[in-house]
Amino acid sequence: MSRFLRPEYGTLVPYVPGEQPKGREYIKLNTNESPFPPHPDVVKAAKEAAQGLNLYCDPDNAALTKVMADYYGVDSGCVLMTNGSDEILNFAFVAFCHAKCPALFPDVTYGFYPVFADINRVPYETIPVNDDMSINPEDYYGAGKTIFIANPNAPTGIFLERDRIEEIIKRNPDNVVVVDEAYIDFGGESCVPLTKEYDNLLVTQTFSKSRSMAGARLGMGIANEKIIQDLNTVKFSLNPYNVNSMTGAAGIAAMKNSGYYEQNCRVIIENRDYATRQLRKLGFEVNNSLANFVFAKHKSISGEDIYLKLREKGVLVRHFTPDKIKDYNRISIGTRDQMEALIRALEEITEETK
Amino acid sequence: MSRFLRPEYGTLVPYVPGEQPKGREYIKLNTNESPFPPHPDVVKAAKEAAQGLNLYCDPDNAALTKVMADYYGVDSGCVLMTNGSDEILNFAFVAFCHAKCPALFPDVTYGFYPVFADINRVPYETIPVNDDMSINPEDYYGAGKTIFIANPNAPTGIFLERDRIEEIIKRNPDNVVVVDEAYIDFGGESCVPLTKEYDNLLVTQTFSKSRSMAGARLGMGIANEKIIQDLNTVKFSLNPYNVNSMTGAAGIAAMKNSGYYEQNCRVIIENRDYATRQLRKLGFEVNNSLANFVFAKHKSISGEDIYLKLREKGVLVRHFTPDKIKDYNRISIGTRDQMEALIRALEEITEETK
Repeated sequence: MSRFLRPEYGTLVPYVPGEQPKGREYIKLNTNESPFPPHPDVVKAAKEAAQGLNLYCDPDNAALTKVMADYYGVDSGCVLMTNGSDEILNFAFVAFCHAKCPALFPDVTYGFYPVFADINRVPYETIPVNDDMSINPEDYYGAGKTIFIANPNAPTGIFLERDRIEEIIKRNPDNVVVVDEAYIDFGGESCVPLTKEYDNLLVTQTFSKSRSMAGARLGMGIANEKIIQDLNTVKFSLNPYNVNSMTGAAGIAAMKNSGYYEQNCRVIIENRDYATRQLRKLGFEVNNSLANFVFAKHKSISGEDIYLKLREKGVLVRHFTPDKIKDYNRISIGTRDQMEALIRALEEITEETK
Repeated sequence: MSRFLRPEYGTLVPYVPGEQPKGREYIKLNTNESPFPPHPDVVKAAKEAAQGLNLYCDPDNAALTKVMADYYGVDSGCVLMTNGSDEILNFAFVAFCHAKCPALFPDVTYGFYPVFADINRVPYETIPVNDDMSINPEDYYGAGKTIFIANPNAPTGIFLERDRIEEIIKRNPDNVVVVDEAYIDFGGESCVPLTKEYDNLLVTQTFSKSRSMAGARLGMGIANEKIIQDLNTVKFSLNPYNVNSMTGAAGIAAMKNSGYYEQNCRVIIENRDYATRQLRKLGFEVNNSLANFVFAKHKSISGEDIYLKLREKGVLVRHFTPDKIKDYNRISIGTRDQMEALIRALEEITEETK
C-alpha cells in the first residue's frame, strides 16, 4: 500500500479469482469454465475482427445488442452488453446503491458483491441462508434496499423458482432487484420475461459459462429501458468502449450457433447428475445444483483436506474459507472423463483416510 | 433516467466518444486511430487465443506484463495492464482522489477527466491553460491535489518537456502526479524512466494509437511498486479479468514487432508535418503537435462550419463545443492519401466561403 491510497481502502479486501495454474497440468474444476471449446465460427469471427483492430470498437455494441435482444424477445433498448457480467454488476452497485439505499444479499452468495459495495463505498447488509443453504424469499419482502440474488446461487448451485423470485420483485416495487443469472443455462428458468412486467428488475447474464467465452469477457444486463439508460450513463462515464471488437464479433458468432452451446449444456447436466450420484456414494452431502458446478461436503473429511488432497492428485476444485461454507468444496462440472477422474481421486482419498 | 438512479447522478454528463459512423464511408480523422492495420502476427496471436476462450484469461496478465516491463526496463511489479488506458485513469481516480485530495488538471485536456471525477464522486479543480493553449508547470507546484497531465496534451497536441514535468513531480512530493502518455510515441519523450526516481509518479499509456489496437482495449500504468499495488487492489475489486485472452496475446505479438509500429509512427510524424504546412497555407492556425493529430483554427471560418462542411464532403474530424476550444477542430493524422484528401476538401471549403 502506498502512502497515497484513499484511506478507506486501507482495509479493502479485493475479490480473489480462482487460481489459473501455470506449470503443472491440472484437471481444472475450480472456476466453472466450460470444458468445451468455442464454436469454430467464434474463432473465425474473432480473427476477422482482429484484422481491423486499429479502429475503435462500436461503443454502442449495436450489432451484438440487436442479436441478444432478438434472442430474448426484448427491445434493443432493454439490453446492455458489458465486459463480463462483473461489469454490469458493478454498474448496478454504482447506479442503484447509496447511503439511503444499501445493497442487500444472502450471506452465502457470489463473493464479489461485498467487494463491489466496498470499492464503491456503499453500505450493504446480508441475510443468512437456511441451514440447507437455501434462500427464504420472504426475508427479502419490503426490504427497502437494492437486492442482489444470484439464481442459481453461487457457490451453492441452488435454484429458486421464478415465481418465488417474482414475489421478491413485487414486494419491493420501489427498489431494484438484480437477478444474477450467470448459471441459468444449466436447467434453471430465466427471469428475463419478467423484465417486461417489472420496471425494477435487472437480469444479468454471462458468456463465460454456458457459452464457452470466459476468456473473452462478455456479459449483459436485460431490464426495463430506463434501467438500461441509467446503466448506460454509468458505462459512458467509466468505460465507453467496454466490449472490444473481437469479443463483440465472437459473441454474435456464438449466438448464431446457439444449438452447439445448448447441446453442451445438456452434456454438463448429464455429467452433473453422474457426479452428484457418485459423490453421494462416496459419503458426500451434495446440493441439488442447477448450475455447472456442485457444492459438496464430506461426512468425515474436512473441506480443506478434500481440496488439498485433490490438488496433490492433480485435480483443482474451489475451497472457500468463510466459516459457514468451509466444510464444502465447489466442484465445476467438466467432461465425463474429467468427472470420472475426479471420482477416482476421491475414491482414493476416502480410502486413504478411512 | 429511472426513478432508482442514485440522486447525484441525475445531472451526470457522460463522456461522448468520437462518432463511429455506420453507413456512409468517411475519411475518418476524428478518433486518433492509427490508419495502419495491426501486424499480421497480432491477428495470428488473437486467433490462437480465441481457440481457448472457454478458459478464463490470466488475471495477473503475467506474460504481457513481463514483456512490457522488459521493454521499458522496469520490474514487472511496476506495471499494470488494463482494459484501455481509460481503465487505469479511472483506477487512479478511485485510488488517489477523495474529498481531502481532489483531482487537478488543466481546463483544456482530455474530456474524460471530469467525468471520472463525477462518477467517482470526488471533487476536482481545473487550471486555465494559456492563450496559446500551453500549460504553465508553475501553476501545479505544491498543489496538494492529485494531478493529471496529458502529455502531449489532448486535444491540443502540445508537448511539455520532460524536465518541466519532473519539476511538477518534485514540487508535489506528497501527491500522485499522473502523466497520461496516450500520444507519447509520436515524437515526445516519455516520463517512464522517472518512475524509478519518484514514488509519486504514475505514467499511463495505451495500445490504441501508435500500436494500432484501439479495438482491442489495452492500456497500462507504470509506476513505483506501491502505486501499482494500490491500483491492483482497485483492479481486483472491480475487474479482475480486465484484459481478455485475445487482447493479451495480441499485445505480446505487437511488442515483438515493435519495429513495424515505430516505422508507422515515423510516417505519421511526416504526414503531420505535411498536414501542418498545408493547413497553415490555407489560413489555419495550427499548434506544433507531438501527437497523431493536429488542433487547428481557421482565421475566418468557424470551427463548427469547418467540421460540418468537412463532414458533408465525407471527412470526419472532431469538434468540441466548450467555449475555449470551439473555434478549433482536432484532426487525426492518417495516411498521406487521407491527408491530401483532407487538404483538397479544405481548399474547396476555403474557396467556397471567400
